Amino acid sequence: MAGSSWGTLLRMTTWGESHGSGLGAVVDGCPAGLPLCEEDIQRYLDRRRPGQSRYTTKRQEADRAEILSGVFEGKTTGTPISILVRNTDQRSRDYSEIMNLYRPGHADYTFDQKYGFRDYRGGGRSSGRETIGRVAAGAVAAKLLQELGVEVIAYARSIGPVEADMGRFDREEIGRNPVCMPDAEAAAKAEAYLQEQMERQDSAGGVVECVIRGLPAGVGEPVFEKLDACLGHALLSIGAVKGVEIGDGFAAAASTGSVNNDMFYIKDGHGAKRTNHAGGILGGISDGSDVVIRAAFKPTPSIARPQRTITRQGEETEAVIRGRHDPIIVPRAVVVVEAMAAFTAADLLLQGLSSRLDSVRRALGR
Amino acid sequence: MAGSSWGTLLRMTTWGESHGSGLGAVVDGCPAGLPLCEEDIQRYLDRRRPGQSRYTTKRQEADRAEILSGVFEGKTTGTPISILVRNTDQRSRDYSEIMNLYRPGHADYTFDQKYGFRDYRGGGRSSGRETIGRVAAGAVAAKLLQELGVEVIAYARSIGPVEADMGRFDREEIGRNPVCMPDAEAAAKAEAYLQEQMERQDSAGGVVECVIRGLPAGVGEPVFEKLDACLGHALLSIGAVKGVEIGDGFAAAASTGSVNNDMFYIKDGHGAKRTNHAGGILGGISDGSDVVIRAAFKPTPSIARPQRTITRQGEETEAVIRGRHDPIIVPRAVVVVEAMAAFTAADLLLQGLSSRLDSVRRALGR
Amino acid sequence: MAGSSWGTLLRMTTWGESHGSGLGAVVDGCPAGLPLCEEDIQRYLDRRRPGQSRYTTKRQEADRAEILSGVFEGKTTGTPISILVRNTDQRSRDYSEIMNLYRPGHADYTFDQKYGFRDYRGGGRSSGRETIGRVAAGAVAAKLLQELGVEVIAYARSIGPVEADMGRFDREEIGRNPVCMPDAEAAAKAEAYLQEQMERQDSAGGVVECVIRGLPAGVGEPVFEKLDACLGHALLSIGAVKGVEIGDGFAAAASTGSVNNDMFYIKDGHGAKRTNHAGGILGGISDGSDVVIRAAFKPTPSIARPQRTITRQGEETEAVIRGRHDPIIVPRAVVVVEAMAAFTAADLLLQGLSSRLDSVRRALGR
Amino acid sequence: MAGSSWGTLLRMTTWGESHGSGLGAVVDGCPAGLPLCEEDIQRYLDRRRPGQSRYTTKRQEADRAEILSGVFEGKTTGTPISILVRNTDQRSRDYSEIMNLYRPGHADYTFDQKYGFRDYRGGGRSSGRETIGRVAAGAVAAKLLQELGVEVIAYARSIGPVEADMGRFDREEIGRNPVCMPDAEAAAKAEAYLQEQMERQDSAGGVVECVIRGLPAGVGEPVFEKLDACLGHALLSIGAVKGVEIGDGFAAAASTGSVNNDMFYIKDGHGAKRTNHAGGILGGISDGSDVVIRAAFKPTPSIARPQRTITRQGEETEAVIRGRHDPIIVPRAVVVVEAMAAFTAADLLLQGLSSRLDSVRRALGR
Repeated sequence: MAGSSWGTLLRMTTWGESHGSGLGAVVDGCPAGLPLCEEDIQRYLDRRRPGQSRYTTKRQEADRAEILSGVFEGKTTGTPISILVRNTDQRSRDYSEIMNLYRPGHADYTFDQKYGFRDYRGGGRSSGRETIGRVAAGAVAAKLLQELGVEVIAYARSIGPVEADMGRFDREEIGRNPVCMPDAEAAAKAEAYLQEQMERQDSAGGVVECVIRGLPAGVGEPVFEKLDACLGHALLSIGAVKGVEIGDGFAAAASTGSVNNDMFYIKDGHGAKRTNHAGGILGGISDGSDVVIRAAFKPTPSIARPQRTITRQGEETEAVIRGRHDPIIVPRAVVVVEAMAAFTAADLLLQGLSSRLDSVRRALGR
Repeated sequence: MAGSSWGTLLRMTTWGESHGSGLGAVVDGCPAGLPLCEEDIQRYLDRRRPGQSRYTTKRQEADRAEILSGVFEGKTTGTPISILVRNTDQRSRDYSEIMNLYRPGHADYTFDQKYGFRDYRGGGRSSGRETIGRVAAGAVAAKLLQELGVEVIAYARSIGPVEADMGRFDREEIGRNPVCMPDAEAAAKAEAYLQEQMERQDSAGGVVECVIRGLPAGVGEPVFEKLDACLGHALLSIGAVKGVEIGDGFAAAASTGSVNNDMFYIKDGHGAKRTNHAGGILGGISDGSDVVIRAAFKPTPSIARPQRTITRQGEETEAVIRGRHDPIIVPRAVVVVEAMAAFTAADLLLQGLSSRLDSVRRALGR
Repeated sequence: MAGSSWGTLLRMTTWGESHGSGLGAVVDGCPAGLPLCEEDIQRYLDRRRPGQSRYTTKRQEADRAEILSGVFEGKTTGTPISILVRNTDQRSRDYSEIMNLYRPGHADYTFDQKYGFRDYRGGGRSSGRETIGRVAAGAVAAKLLQELGVEVIAYARSIGPVEADMGRFDREEIGRNPVCMPDAEAAAKAEAYLQEQMERQDSAGGVVECVIRGLPAGVGEPVFEKLDACLGHALLSIGAVKGVEIGDGFAAAASTGSVNNDMFYIKDGHGAKRTNHAGGILGGISDGSDVVIRAAFKPTPSIARPQRTITRQGEETEAVIRGRHDPIIVPRAVVVVEAMAAFTAADLLLQGLSSRLDSVRRALGR
Repeated sequence: MAGSSWGTLLRMTTWGESHGSGLGAVVDGCPAGLPLCEEDIQRYLDRRRPGQSRYTTKRQEADRAEILSGVFEGKTTGTPISILVRNTDQRSRDYSEIMNLYRPGHADYTFDQKYGFRDYRGGGRSSGRETIGRVAAGAVAAKLLQELGVEVIAYARSIGPVEADMGRFDREEIGRNPVCMPDAEAAAKAEAYLQEQMERQDSAGGVVECVIRGLPAGVGEPVFEKLDACLGHALLSIGAVKGVEIGDGFAAAASTGSVNNDMFYIKDGHGAKRTNHAGGILGGISDGSDVVIRAAFKPTPSIARPQRTITRQGEETEAVIRGRHDPIIVPRAVVVVEAMAAFTAADLLLQGLSSRLDSVRRALGR
């Protein structure tokens, strides 16, 4: 089935495998007239590029974005924006020894069950490189949101058991430390924790938090296409994500109504909330506060220590994964979360233009 | 925007408000030849019906399902199954005093922001009664899954701070206690906790867990339509859900690869896993183990104690919510989770029929 | 597969069989704030209701529309509008003799091939009564378009070999004669032709033309969702339609570029065209002129004279169709064409709101 | 809005402009295990390539297809197949003089109205080169259909007023004459007619007919996604198409039921029809006979003789179109029609796998 598209009015279709010719995305439905250049996309791709710290795979990829269509004289034309990133450092030989066995925690087994065979080179379509298309497309959405006064920011909220102290939140810090935490002290502890896992030939997980600022109230549809449900879907569709939360999330389940309800008040003549347990969404619709969402990433399944597994032929064996892998997914996943959140919010924002007869009239000038 | 449909090949479209004429669903794309009668649907609706325990609203609704189309001679015909449930106990007068203010934790404010006005009677479309259409449609999907050897079971995993001990899991117990817990001891504690909240004019939240048994390996699409992402979307689209987890969920984020990876082995000649931290899904595709997913429900926002809020006219005021409300959503939400999970799994199962040329040939007999 | 929905932002989902409990539609995505009442829908349904002339089936159906949701205080709320029409004059006995044979020109054979069995009562879902949902939904779209200054008008362009003379076009005449022609003289000839067919126990076909006036330039998407392609799809989805044309249609294929091209000129300071061979659409996008589209309806397949056919059991036999049938579909199909065209144009109009950054800004007030 | 995707289970997303870097398509949802190589696609692209006869533009383009993803070891993997065709002979200078005026019969005016500006180089996205993505994607669908015993054949049925005599139908002839007619005698007349139009600096239109052979009965959905409606949509979405017909099409509108109904009989133990006025489709569902559909193409709007038009600035002027253009679209459109028909039939064939519980069971082996 065709499951490689995301969005309704603004839609990305991604394609590509880890060791094929390249990867990319087609962004369809972007409003015409948006200033856009390759550098807008490259900036996002560079944030997920490997080889930038000791915690990322040593694979060397320039990951240069080429815009093949949809932009003319520096502006989007309203037609599909096709973005291509060529693979350059495939080294398929690294993976030949795993073509006949199923790596624990990976999609090798399920791809074979579903499709009858698989592209075993570097995980094929289930590789983390699949996110290149998402990030390229998300960069377009982020540019669109920025023009409309909406900003999306993501960062590592926790690395393994080490959690950032939000009282020390420093936005600049996110780009300064290799784990993308907004708290330098926690980042240092997280690095120590990661170092320890690497020495033990093990890997770590973590939580990415994402905040959408400036989103107008009224975005999201009240039943199946709730803003939180769509954001949740978007984040859960990123490989290795095992959970999502909006606002207080699971903690809300243990709270009480009198504590969890956010009281409304009047601020500068407008409705506002004293707290934001709800994470900026009520009944699936944005309320004008910051939208806050978190995604839990499992530890990288590729670890150097031997693991028991089975072969395609149905025999038990031991897997030793050589290849080049990140000991933690989180730092490079931060921009993926940001991209998916931006894209989803932008799509729902556009969908909402037709929710009221008066805004329809305004858009049409009728 | 049209956000009231869910599913691709198997699709439900729901409609209806708390105090309108009724609510319902149209289920389109159900394979022809499935035995189905109103009783199949009624059984599910009865599980979400109010008035069954002290923890549910006193509103009296028979919630009788009428199948208006799509079934002939006791079997589905392949055409849309329209299901209607009339409202009978609306009592709109109860709500007239809240038409001009925004109840904290409810969608009143965001509906007004989005649509310019709202049906304020009992929450209109944002009422919990909206789930009637979901449950009716889910009952059809559950029947289809059952024919194919797949079973979906949900229960309360926790109520406020009280968690079920899964070592004491007793499936029969779920239907015996009013909080739908699979552990009688925890259920008793949960009841005591709820009693306490009611006395304090407060409300509680909780976590619903859902298990899908017998789902073949290979269900779910590898990128945006991952089985976990779609299930997550489905559950997050239920009002009051603030988080979802698959398998170990957020706990996986604090684990390590060597612990979190599930080792494969051979069992009765087939691939199997020694553990199920992954919750039955690898790379977005079912692996043949039990699929395990959880949803966190916030405490009921309607509480009897006075709360500070604002009016439509932009003035601060105090809200006192009379009406009829559940002190906890979880027990009645259990069947809603089950319905949404069943529907989503059934849709992806059908989508997967075309994933391989050989299964296409088999279905066509070519 | 779920094929009973039409539209993207504005979406109708229809359901119901000829001899089931009733038929209906759910209209989702209608902007909030549109004045709407049952009478708006009834007016359209009455135009397709049987029993109004000698050329329509004698089945007696009041076809009363009940709005079950989505309207509050006389205005749409933005949530799904569910419309129900009960069947009252089913008389299933009329059809029992055809349950085991395949009527020529009907969908009996293909339904059995597709689904393994069928609701044989009055054609089930393939009956002309299926259009009730379309007309009810189209009435909502027509109301929306009217608010935005767009008008949709359909009429019989030809009945069998009798064609209306467009030089004598009289809009009022459409509602005056039983064949819905805009030319009284042609209507009289058409009636004579129909009378002749009825005497010969035969049936007739015809062409319905539809004009959309006041549609702004810029509606329709340039590739697969062209305005003409979507309108064509909409009309071809009406039972018995075997062809569609836009503007000069098939005649254009025999013309030359110098004749077929419409020259632009300036009229009242705006771009206009001297001719309208294109039928108001260039490159799939409306150009501000009248949109003109035609649909060819085949003769009613139900005829009284005996026809050779086969049984479900694979034996050759003779079919004699008693039942109650129209000798021509066209007069009652006029409003169906109008409904489908209105719905499709309205959906594409809403989709177009996000085609330009400046109209997005205008709608959002940002 | 995102209008550059076509299909539900099998979906193509196309992109690219006439004078951008290139054009392409992403084909998502193709079943895994289908043998596929670049040559399969190239064969189709070569049929639409310019410069092959005196009736096509002199633009020189190799139009080489590169498969970037989705194929491994010579077979489709079930993941998206991205196909890229680079532009090599853009010569943008040819078009600079038309950047400020609206060519009659082209989409220049409507693109500007919709998007606020346009890529004026060679028509941008509205160029005939847009069909490269369709043809590449259609080649994949045709390969899939071929594996399942279904064949799609298109040819010119008429060129201007010259119609092929179907009594002289010769399939081999289609590829032998430059106008792709299945009748050598008509082809010769058509060439003479085209020569005459070229001398008069004028252009011609024509009709393409397409036949789908071997499609099993039961394909197509009974309401909005009828096989004929989807095929019609697909063909009407090709630039310059102004009408479509199924079977007898518009001629059926002037026929009578007794003539137009196809009688069933038993042939080799199976149901069959004595005639095929219906074009292989009853009630929107294939009946096992040949599916026959026609598309009317308007004359090429680009003609060398001067035409009156207006400028972007709102002044009347004269357009003289130099550029490189085909005097007729039909011969190169034949493969585009074939591609769109194949893709649409394949998608509906896959969707139909879930129409019956027994075929679902068969596909799953449950």
